[in-house]
This record gives sequence, structure tokens and C-alpha cells, in this order.
Amino acid sequence: MPSMRAHVYRIAADGPDDVSGLDALFAGGVSAKNVVAVLGKTEGNGCVNDFTRGYATRSFEALFQKHGVEGVSLVMSGGTEGALSPHWTVFTREMVDAVAGRALAIGVARTPHLPPHHLGRREQVLLVADGVRKAMRDAGIDDPRDVHFVQIKCPLLTLHRITEAEAEGNSLATRDTLKSMGLSRGASALGVAVALGEVDAQEIADADICSRYELFSHCASSSAGVELTDHEIIVLGMSDRWSGPLEIDHTLMRDAIDATSVHETFRRLPQPSRLAAVLAKAEPDPSGKVGGKRHTMLDDSDISGTRHARAFVGGVLAGVFGITDLYVSGGAEHQGPAGGGPVAIIVEKED
Amino acid sequence: MPSMRAHVYRIAADGPDDVSGLDALFAGGVSAKNVVAVLGKTEGNGCVNDFTRGYATRSFEALFQKHGVEGVSLVMSGGTEGALSPHWTVFTREMVDAVAGRALAIGVARTPHLPPHHLGRREQVLLVADGVRKAMRDAGIDDPRDVHFVQIKCPLLTLHRITEAEAEGNSLATRDTLKSMGLSRGASALGVAVALGEVDAQEIADADICSRYELFSHCASSSAGVELTDHEIIVLGMSDRWSGPLEIDHTLMRDAIDATSVHETFRRLPQPSRLAAVLAKAEPDPSGKVGGKRHTMLDDSDISGTRHARAFVGGVLAGVFGITDLYVSGGAEHQGPAGGGPVAIIVEKED
Amino acid sequence: MPSMRAHVYRIAADGPDDVSGLDALFAGGVSAKNVVAVLGKTEGNGCVNDFTRGYATRSFEALFQKHGVEGVSLVMSGGTEGALSPHWTVFTREMVDAVAGRALAIGVARTPHLPPHHLGRREQVLLVADGVRKAMRDAGIDDPRDVHFVQIKCPLLTLHRITEAEAEGNSLATRDTLKSMGLSRGASALGVAVALGEVDAQEIADADICSRYELFSHCASSSAGVELTDHEIIVLGMSDRWSGPLEIDHTLMRDAIDATSVHETFRRLPQPSRLAAVLAKAEPDPSGKVGGKRHTMLDDSDISGTRHARAFVGGVLAGVFGITDLYVSGGAEHQGPAGGGPVAIIVEKED
Amino acid sequence: MPSMRAHVYRIAADGPDDVSGLDALFAGGVSAKNVVAVLGKTEGNGCVNDFTRGYATRSFEALFQKHGVEGVSLVMSGGTEGALSPHWTVFTREMVDAVAGRALAIGVARTPHLPPHHLGRREQVLLVADGVRKAMRDAGIDDPRDVHFVQIKCPLLTLHRITEAEAEGNSLATRDTLKSMGLSRGASALGVAVALGEVDAQEIADADICSRYELFSHCASSSAGVELTDHEIIVLGMSDRWSGPLEIDHTLMRDAIDATSVHETFRRLPQPSRLAAVLAKAEPDPSGKVGGKRHTMLDDSDISGTRHARAFVGGVLAGVFGITDLYVSGGAEHQGPAGGGPVAIIVEKED
Repeated sequence: MPSMRAHVYRIAADGPDDVSGLDALFAGGVSAKNVVAVLGKTEGNGCVNDFTRGYATRSFEALFQKHGVEGVSLVMSGGTEGALSPHWTVFTREMVDAVAGRALAIGVARTPHLPPHHLGRREQVLLVADGVRKAMRDAGIDDPRDVHFVQIKCPLLTLHRITEAEAEGNSLATRDTLKSMGLSRGASALGVAVALGEVDAQEIADADICSRYELFSHCASSSAGVELTDHEIIVLGMSDRWSGPLEIDHTLMRDAIDATSVHETFRRLPQPSRLAAVLAKAEPDPSGKVGGKRHTMLDDSDISGTRHARAFVGGVLAGVFGITDLYVSGGAEHQGPAGGGPVAIIVEKED
Repeated sequence: MPSMRAHVYRIAADGPDDVSGLDALFAGGVSAKNVVAVLGKTEGNGCVNDFTRGYATRSFEALFQKHGVEGVSLVMSGGTEGALSPHWTVFTREMVDAVAGRALAIGVARTPHLPPHHLGRREQVLLVADGVRKAMRDAGIDDPRDVHFVQIKCPLLTLHRITEAEAEGNSLATRDTLKSMGLSRGASALGVAVALGEVDAQEIADADICSRYELFSHCASSSAGVELTDHEIIVLGMSDRWSGPLEIDHTLMRDAIDATSVHETFRRLPQPSRLAAVLAKAEPDPSGKVGGKRHTMLDDSDISGTRHARAFVGGVLAGVFGITDLYVSGGAEHQGPAGGGPVAIIVEKED
Repeated sequence: MPSMRAHVYRIAADGPDDVSGLDALFAGGVSAKNVVAVLGKTEGNGCVNDFTRGYATRSFEALFQKHGVEGVSLVMSGGTEGALSPHWTVFTREMVDAVAGRALAIGVARTPHLPPHHLGRREQVLLVADGVRKAMRDAGIDDPRDVHFVQIKCPLLTLHRITEAEAEGNSLATRDTLKSMGLSRGASALGVAVALGEVDAQEIADADICSRYELFSHCASSSAGVELTDHEIIVLGMSDRWSGPLEIDHTLMRDAIDATSVHETFRRLPQPSRLAAVLAKAEPDPSGKVGGKRHTMLDDSDISGTRHARAFVGGVLAGVFGITDLYVSGGAEHQGPAGGGPVAIIVEKED
Repeated sequence: MPSMRAHVYRIAADGPDDVSGLDALFAGGVSAKNVVAVLGKTEGNGCVNDFTRGYATRSFEALFQKHGVEGVSLVMSGGTEGALSPHWTVFTREMVDAVAGRALAIGVARTPHLPPHHLGRREQVLLVADGVRKAMRDAGIDDPRDVHFVQIKCPLLTLHRITEAEAEGNSLATRDTLKSMGLSRGASALGVAVALGEVDAQEIADADICSRYELFSHCASSSAGVELTDHEIIVLGMSDRWSGPLEIDHTLMRDAIDATSVHETFRRLPQPSRLAAVLAKAEPDPSGKVGGKRHTMLDDSDISGTRHARAFVGGVLAGVFGITDLYVSGGAEHQGPAGGGPVAIIVEKED
């Protein structure tokens, strides 16, 4: 009896346009049409004017076009601060002739276009919630408790989009382009929380977004990018309809130095196993303190706070896992508690 | 029979000029004249135009002047990237009525003025080596194996100093101000290595400084600052002539993700005990890789590599120790192996 | 019959703490007690974590204390981007035995402490307006049309102040520290506009600050700094009760490339004369365009827009005046039209 | 009798991949096969990790491929600091049925691949000199005095290239990636100087590159980019074999505030005329001073000196020409005197 089976590949990138590693995988027999998603860490600043995300997206589009494949979810997160290493995490899925067991499941979805004046507002929350439910169905996951990571790529406002929207008579949630990234990430995360039943949709008003941080999802990871105006959604979880040796679990870092929670979850996963991927969110604690001590990430006008946070939490996680090609994405509004964030770990059981 | 006894205080700083925490200690009974050294982490960029170091130095000078004390070693290291917290580590020593046992010992020294054209050259190495020997004598440490950390504040070149030196007909090791910080740190570290017998002085030529990284000290930590033209030297180690519950040990991080070495050394220290201070060096691996994977710290023209390294290694260490007021200083040329660096841990035994 | 007489000195600064140039003036006979104000351009980033302003202020306080003088207005504006040169502009005034004629007049004032929750709101506008009127009286200027430049140093919010204010139950105009600088500058400028009769106080609501940019002053220049919680106000203008060869005039740059207005005003001033000082404001055009072409200052997450603007407008003005020790201050909210800003020129007539 | 005729188009860019403006020109009748070169100002940092140059290059390659055209010279210069506006300057040439007169002439050439260990050395100088001569022949310019601007895109060293080259046993001119950009620009400029007879090839040794700045070209403009390992060369000048209303002239800015030389050359050009393009180089004065006053561009560890210089000189030129879509490229080693740089002006005569 056939089942679905996922594969996860972590591939080094020599630059935002270096898709040669994946091309080599294809040459080695992996089928391009099985690729369902690529999560990339590119080496730009991860903020408004980070063109490495778009450049990478364009490069992958060209690669997939060459192989006759369309519609792969491409989620690029900018910022490889500290010793974090630019890389691609490639997810494939295929029908195999194996009895279904409990294994890693992957589903994707794409929302309709988000009008700029809906960004950072309740409309974005609901739009994303719908998309997450769709991606869960695509993954064959029924129970929200089986979802361990929801990656969303969401849009941001540029001055150009702001000007256009205002010319059409719309008022926006913010005119600050950097701040729009936070609002978009926050609203997207709340969309995940709504879809997973973590937060009641009725409870969320416009004003709560990026302010009532006690509302959050345990599994959401959202990144804003200039290169899209809708949402790419990828759901990762465990499903009884899939097969293979891959397993996923997740935890929450309570704050930026909470290595303990990560160690514990890592230890809970099957042994022996090979580490397949670590996916995490990081942000400067909005309280201005970590562990009771002042940090300076939010007072630094030279380096964006998200860059500081990725570098630092990248260090915490690299210390735990011993690798640097970690997917650490910045800006964790409503993604875990304020100053903390979700960490998903995927391992491949070895016999 | 009297002995020397050290105390270590870790004090939060609200800004580069916030010396109120130490002033409160004095008000609480600590004698200002017992202070032998202050190691500060200030929140500037830690590079050439970091004036927070000078501002802090000036603020402490005014405080000590108010208390009628002169000549305290003030070593300010800029850069509290990531969640690192600005703070002062204050070292005092005093004669006490206790039998000497093996305990933390502190000694200090100051070298003569370094002419700009000696910076980054053999002359600087030898000048510093003399200074380290003097500081060891001041600490009452005879055996170099009892030295666990040597902190040096060394000068750098500014355009102004370069122009002056060249006007006097001297040729300099570099005309690049940022690079001069590295050369000065490197030569100072080799000075420590020479003093501790780790490297033979005969073996070091001008050209080796910041190039033959296989020559290094296990205990050196040097920071360059615009605010001095000589060297401040602080030696920390264990001595049989001191008393009290403080112990120090050190290890080398082999690379930026080597949390294992740090965990092991931390576990070796007496238990139960209270963590008194962690002193470490960090640098972008000059090979361009950590653990076999590319990092982007040295190709980033927006953020200095030392800032990346402090943020990341700060994260690794915060994950191990669970605190953010760590003394992580950037630029570890000849301070441990290339890409790695020394970590000293001071604990106070509890009964 | 005696009259008041002003002097203006432009002094190079070798660093934020280099007050040796002014000390030399004192040694040369200028009386320290005649100094009424120092306007400094220091070499920090001019944003939230610019400690060069505080460092310079502290250094001048120490200098004046040495000379037994108190209460000098010290206004430090950070940011010497491009080829702008760090320098101090020192204003003195004294009673002289000369017939009063029309000449440069200087007055100063200081407002009461601004509670953090008044920052960026109508209360700040009114507080500043009162202060400006007081400074005009101090300058002996009755007619608002005789005022040519009003320099204000205003406070900003740090995370620390935000946390404290919120702990006291107050809600703030913003929680974004960088944005608080803009709001404080904007409210201060509107305070000038109210005092000079350019805008009716009744017309200004909280929501207008940093949004209704058609409300502005032609003469206001405000800089935010972490080192104060009240306002320093300096009024420069022409008065019939003063004497001496100094004259001041001002113009508005309509946008960042409006060199023409500046050339015209410069030509209108008496000839022959020596340029004594140029005082100007610059900001990234909030429309995202200059002269119909897109600029990228507001989409740049690596460099603050105010730094871009100072560098660029510094270039425009240096091209006109042929000097680089110009007082170009960033962030011109409500200081001239959106994207433009006031430029004041002081010359000393020669015979 | 037929002649060659050039056209120059200045096209706004909405992002590094926005080639829609040129595509619209093609739709409007301009023939893609006539395009000989595109000089772009893209909005990256203009330094080592500026991927906007490669992204733009890739985007233009795709556009030209769509139109069946190959081999267009694509020279992307990163950095639109201050109010500088991202844009493309497109040069076309075609055979027309008009009597040749003296008019703007354009020629291009490409050198062979430059081995990394030749970068910044005499070998690069000679390689570029050969390329410039070839481009002059392509332009139909015999007399070096008729050359007014030579644009060169040259390679740089990345850590990756350094590691590879060293693995092959080659020693490099520098291991510092940012510094390699300067050396490559400097050697390329000296190549122009050799080709134009401004400097004798015999006179140039490896050690002179980026040190003997009294050797320079009046017409050279070189930009380093990660996206090539050879050199793109574009020669602009006047030739008797061309026709049309375009004229070019050039001047040298002696330093960053030398607006006077630019005004004078602008006035010398035919009137009435329409400004077609301004092409200029800028750099932080290596003396640390402009007009006798200290600048801080070379001591700033937060912002690269080339970014400061582009913003500032961009302001000077925008003040003269009243536009912001100026091609101001950073790093002017051996391109004009130290601290200054060439400025070429192209106008279209109007009747």
C-alpha cells in the first residue's frame, strides 16, 4: 500500500544565485518535480533593502523552469549573521510503495494577493489562517497538535507600495517600511495561531497586532520579503499517512538564552539519528532585557535588531547542535512569547 | 598570617558613563583604594570610531578621582552585540588576616608609550612581554602555568596618528585604521605568549604578526582602543599566596561553535559555586569557514566581522552559562587558534 | 552708549572630547564667561546610540567648570557624514562701548523637564513655544521676523525611559526609540512655529506631529539627544540693540538639491564679508523622491536615513560655500517643507 | 555618406531587477541590437557583499536574451547613497545616413580572465591597457586626447577566490576582500593612464598601486564587482567619424568640494543643450582632510568610506546639475588626484 514520503536536503550556497547544489542533486537522481519547498538562508541584511532574497528566488525559478517544474514554494529568509551559513533546505515528497507509519509530513499553500492596506491588520490574519488550513489538508494533517512548524513568507510595504496605496485613497497600518515587516510577520503568525486553535479569531483586533504579545503561536515562523504580495505557506508536522525515517518535534525558547528547552527537546527525539534540519525564530526581546539584564539591540541605530538577534540566537543554537547551517529567521512577533521563539528539529532515524 | 584576597564584582551599566553601580559599592563599604582593575563591556561598535570606551574610561577616572584613588587599570572593550549586556567587572584586592591557600590572584602593569611605527611589529611584542612579566610579579605568580587570563588594552592607529608618524619620517605597519586594531591585538597576544613561554621570542618576525596564526597564546585577550598609546596589562591566575573562595580556570574554544570545551571546563570547577565572571575572545574564522561551512562575516561590508563574532560567540556562551553579562571581546588574533579563542571562568566556591 | 555684541568662532574638533581649541581661545583672551552657546557637530551616528554628543557635552562642562562658568547652552548634533568636519561653533556675547546698530543677536533659554509621555505631543509644542519666547526676550528681539534660526536640543525616548514611563501607567507617543527622535524634533519645531506666529497653536493636535508636514517653521532646527530631558533653546536673529560686523540671514531649501535658494541668499548678504557659520537642517524626503526621482534613503536598513541626508545635503552646501565645517543637522520634521529645510548664514562684514 | 551615431538614455530603476524601462524603449522602437553598453547605479552597498550588481546584470542578460542580443557591456556600480537615484544609462550606436562630424563616440572591449594573483599588480595594469586600446579602436578614436571617460568594471577577491588561489600556491596582493576592490580599481585606472599616455608603463611597479597616487588618469572610472573575473571596458570620447547632437567633455574635481571646476566645464559645453548624463568618481580623501579640515570617512567602522564619499560628492554634483540620477561611483584610486576624481558631462545640443 503506497504512502507519501518526505526527504530533507541541506545544501550549501556559495551566493544568493548559487543553485548548483540542487542542480547536482537533480543530476544525481532526485526528481525536480518532487520538490515541494525550498527554505533558504541568504546573506543579505534580512531587512527592507535585502535583494538577496529576490535574487535567490529568481535563480531557483530559473532552475525549476529549466527542469519543467512550476509552483515550488520558495521561502527566502535574509540574514546569516555571525557564523550562520548561507544554505538551502530542500523538501521533497513523493508517493512510495511503503506502509504508512507516523512520519514527517509536508503541505503547502499560497494565499490570494494581500492589498497593502490589509497588511498588519485583521484581514491579513484571516487570509493567512485560511491558507494554513489549506496547507494542513495538503499535508494530510488533521489534528493541529500534529503541526510542528508553519513557515510563512509574507509581503512588506515599500515606499513605492505605500505611495500607490495612498494614491488610491487607502490608509495603511504603517508608513515605516521596516516596521511593516514586523506587522506583516506578526499578523501572519496570528493567522497560524487562529488556524491551529491557539488563539480565537474573535479575540484579535487590528490594534492587537504587534502589541498584545501574550497572543502567539507555538509553531509559526514568518519572514517578510519584498518579492511577493501574497503568502507562501509551508506546514511541517507528523502524519500517520506518511512513511520514512524522518521525524519532527518542536519547542519554544522562552527567551534568547533558553538553550535548556532546546537541549531537552533534542534529547527527546529518536536515537541514533542524524540531524536533518533546525528551523528557528529569533527576535530582540521587546522588554529591552534578557534574563534581567539590559540588551542594546533596540537602541542600536547602526545594526537592525533582527540582525543582532539572528547572530546571537544562531550562536546559542550552534552551541547546542554543533552546526552553523541553521535556519534562524529574524523577527518573531507573535511567534512564541515576546523575546523567545519556536525551534523545530527534524531528525532522520538511523538503525 | 596575612594573605592577599581578591573580590570580583559584576555590575550593570546603563550607559558608557554610568558608574553609579560602583559608586554604590563604595557607599556600601567596598574601599575604592582596593580596586585594581575594571574590565568593561561598553555598547559602542568596538571598532575604530568607538568613543564609548573613552567615555567610560573618563567617567571612571572622574569617579576614582572623587575617591582619591589613582592608577586603576581601566580596560574597556566595545561591543555588546546580540543580547550581550553592557557591564563592568571590577577586581579588588586587599591584605586580609587569613592563611594563604590556593586562590585567584590579580596583578597589573603598564608599559611605556608605544611609538606608532612600533605598532604591529616585533617591538610591540617585546614591550608587552616585559609588561606581562611585571604584572605576574605583581600578582605573586611565578609559574606561567598558573596564569589563566591576561587582559591587555593596546593602542590603535588613527588617521591623525598615521599622518603625524609619517610626517616624522616613520613608515607604519599599516595605514588602515581598522587593520591597525588587529595588528596591535595580535602583537600584544604574542607578547603574552612570549612571557608565558608559549612561543619563543626568537621565532617571531614582523611578518608573522597576524599571519602565522599557528603561533598563539592560550590565555591572551587583547583589545585595542583609541584612548591610550601604551598598554594596560592585567594578569589573572592562581597563586598559593592568596586566600578566599575564588577560583579561575580557562579553556580554548577551537572554533566559534566549540561549546563542548567550555562545558567541560565549567564542570571541572568546584561545585557548588557561584559564577563570578566569564572572560572570552571571539573572532571571525579567517578561513572563511566554521565547522566546514562558509560564514559571511569577512565579506560583510556593512557590519565589521568582529561585531558578528562577538554576537555569535556571545550566544554560544550565553547558552552555556545562562547569563548575558559576559566579557566577550572581539578580535582574537594569536589569542587561541585561528577562529577560536580563550575562555576564562571565575567561580566563587559555596559551602 | 553701550550695546551688546556677539562673536562667532568655528573651531576644529579632533574628537568628541577635544575642547582644546576653545581652551586655547580662552588662553588667548576670550572670556569664558561671555560664552553663551556651543553648537557642536560630533562624529557619532547622530541617532539613538550616539554617545559622542554626551561625551562632548561632558567635556565642555568640565572645561567651563575649570573656568568657573555655568549654564552655557551646549547643543551637540551627531553625524559628520561624507566630508563634513567635526567642529564647534562657539557664540559669545558681551556688553561693549559701541553705538547699537543692526547686528547679530543671540538669546538662550531652557525649558522645564519634559515628562516622557508628553514627548511628541501638543504639550511639548507648547512647552517649547514658551521657551522660544523667553530666548527671544533674552536676545532683545521683539519682532518674530527678525528671528533667523532657532536651535533646539530636545530629548528622546530610550527603552529605559519607555519602561519607566509605562511602569508609571503612562502611554507614550511611540515605543520606537529612533522614531521618538523624529517626534521630539517635530514637536519642538512646531513649538518654534507657534512662538514665531507661523502656525496657530490652536491648529495643532497630537496627531499632526510628524504627519501634517504642511505645518512648519522657516527657522527651526531641532536635534534630539539622549543626554537631556528638557530643552536647550538658542535664538539667533538681527536686533537694533546690538552692534558689531556680524549679520545673519536665512532661506529654505525646498528640497535636498535646492542649491539655488542658498546661492541667492548668500549673494544677498553684505560684500565683502567673511563666512562665519552655516547652520542647516536636512532630511530624507518623506515622499521617497527628490526632483521626481526615487531615492533609497528610507528603504535602507543598513544606514539611517538621517545619515544619508546629512551626507548629501552636506555635499550640496559644501559645493556652494567651499567649506566642510558646516553645521548640518539631520531630521527636519516641521523644519521647512517636507524634504527641505532651513539654512542660516552668518557673515562678518569686512571693510 | 553613412556615419556612426550614438544615443544616451537615462532610465529610472525601481529595483535591481527592474529592466522594464529599457524594455519599454525597445517596444517604442529602439533596436536592442544597437545597445552597446548599460551603466547602472544599483542600490546595494557598493562594497564586497553587494549582490544588487549581479542581480541587475542577470536581469539585463535575461532581457537581452529575450531580444536575441548578446555581448552588451553591463557595468553595474553599487551605491545610491544620499538622494542619488537608482537608474540605468543606456548607450546605443548605429550606422546612420548622415555626414560624419565631431560627435560622441563609444567603443567597448573585454579583457581575458584575470587570475586572482594578478589582481592589484602590474599584470592587471597591462591587461587593462591593452583592453582600453582595443576599445578606442572600436570607438574610432585615434588621439588619446579625444578620450573623455573610460569606464571599467573589474573583478575583486572574495574569501572563496582567495582560498582557491592560495590552495594553488599563489600569493595574493591582499587577503582583505574590501581592500581588493581598491587595488583592482587602482590597477585598472593605471591601465587607462598607460593606454592614454598619461603614465609610462615602465614607471609602474606593483608597490605603486594604491600608494603612489601622484600617478593617475584624468578619464578613468573603475568599479569592482563580484560578478566577473575579467574586465568590461567602455570608452567615451569625441570622434570625427561620428554624427549627431551629442557632445562629451570632462574635468577633474581636485577634491570633494571642488564644484567650481565642474561649473566651469558645464558652462563650456554648447548652449542650448539638454543634459544627457553625468559620470563621476568619488573617494574619501586619503589624507584624512578636505579643504584643510578633518573628515571622518576613513575612521568610520559602521559605514564604508566609499559610501560616505558617494553620498557627499553626489550632493555636490546634484547641487550643480539639479538632478539626482547621476552616475557617481565610489573608490577613485588613481582616478584623478587623491581625494578628487574625474567628472564627464554629456549634453545633447538643442537648436
